[in-house]
Amino acid sequence: MSECLFCKIIKGEIPCYKIYEDDGFLAFLDIFPKTEGHTLVIPKVHTEWVWDVKNLGKYFETVGKIARHLREKNNGNMVRSLVYGVEVAHAHVHLMPGQENNLSGKQLSGADLEKIRQRLTMIK
Amino acid sequence: MSECLFCKIIKGEIPCYKIYEDDGFLAFLDIFPKTEGHTLVIPKVHTEWVWDVKNLGKYFETVGKIARHLREKNNGNMVRSLVYGVEVAHAHVHLMPGQENNLSGKQLSGADLEKIRQRLTMIK
Repeated sequence: MSECLFCKIIKGEIPCYKIYEDDGFLAFLDIFPKTEGHTLVIPKVHTEWVWDVKNLGKYFETVGKIARHLREKNNGNMVRSLVYGVEVAHAHVHLMPGQENNLSGKQLSGADLEKIRQRLTMIK
Repeated sequence: MSECLFCKIIKGEIPCYKIYEDDGFLAFLDIFPKTEGHTLVIPKVHTEWVWDVKNLGKYFETVGKIARHLREKNNGNMVRSLVYGVEVAHAHVHLMPGQENNLSGKQLSGADLEKIRQRLTMIK
């Protein structure tokens, strides 16, 4: 799976704006955000589809932990979630703080992403 | 929580097009579907937000089981998922078979819903 973009991010071969990591999962900012703090949560074991991730319960316990963290960091506003899975063939769950899409979905600058990363980074 | 629409569905006070039920969760067709087989999966214990459901891992193991079932019933096509949670204040996960929104999101007739329910009903 050496060609997989997300596997390269997991291995550190491509940088990311990481906000959470544990043994099984990694969460980092989407660089094409729809809302501020738009985050992707991925399993470290390469799996194409979310529904085929072996430890799906643990995966979503982690997604939930991150969603509650993002909610807390955003004044208790709701955190939406999407599973689309067509952009990159490595399972990923989108988390989007806030009820409206307040960003364009265009690539955000590294400086802006770094500011958001610092605000949202989560202790394991 | 007697005023909650989904609690009334769980108690059988309001009918639904059920495709799956177990001790903890219920899945039924969205009557305003975006795709054929658009399903809502809800916990039986009233909880406002998905991220606050106590047994979140078990919840999404169930969501995953239903998603794989819907995928199998739809020729292996992907099943998207959304957590929005603004329509009804009872946690619910949307599952939408297929990649495109092929229905209008308008209310489907009972006869059409019943046909879909028969096709998609899942044995526990």
